Amino acid sequence: MVDKLTAKQREAALKRLNGWVYDEAKDAIHHVFKFKDFSEAFGFMSRVALVAEKSGHHPDWSNSYNSVTITLSTHDAGGLSVRDVELAKAIDTILV
Amino acid sequence: MVDKLTAKQREAALKRLNGWVYDEAKDAIHHVFKFKDFSEAFGFMSRVALVAEKSGHHPDWSNSYNSVTITLSTHDAGGLSVRDVELAKAIDTILV
Repeated sequence: MVDKLTAKQREAALKRLNGWVYDEAKDAIHHVFKFKDFSEAFGFMSRVALVAEKSGHHPDWSNSYNSVTITLSTHDAGGLSVRDVELAKAIDTILV
Repeated sequence: MVDKLTAKQREAALKRLNGWVYDEAKDAIHHVFKFKDFSEAFGFMSRVALVAEKSGHHPDWSNSYNSVTITLSTHDAGGLSVRDVELAKAIDTILV
């Protein structure tokens, strides 16, 4: 099991992430990523999939041509947890 | 350019597809696919991505762990076209 982040922990975590937006209603973070085309978008998705599978924590995400929307929250915690922050950081690293 | 299907063409096409549902409000078809786990779901998505890129027609789709929801419509046609039916058929073929 993993605990939900407190408001203070969440605010500190968001400062270390790049462009992720907190959704209070869902207690989740999301980010819309834009690419040149579908090939580039799906290439990114493939890299995220490998990171997600390796860490055992998976995103809710959607894709439409060059756009990828990723939403992260932790089902077991009932909201945003350290697992989401770690996956978000790993996704940010892919794009550096 | 490609034309929207007529109601008659659409009904005939849906009969040849496997489990796709027509959404009148969106003039689109969608299908929710369930898999064993994320690995199997993303493996399927990778195969769909290759088919989509090859045909130059891409889905709107989302994934959450073992579930993949695919929605097909043709932006240029303003609704469902033969391109969507062909992509749906190709996706069905992956799962045979």
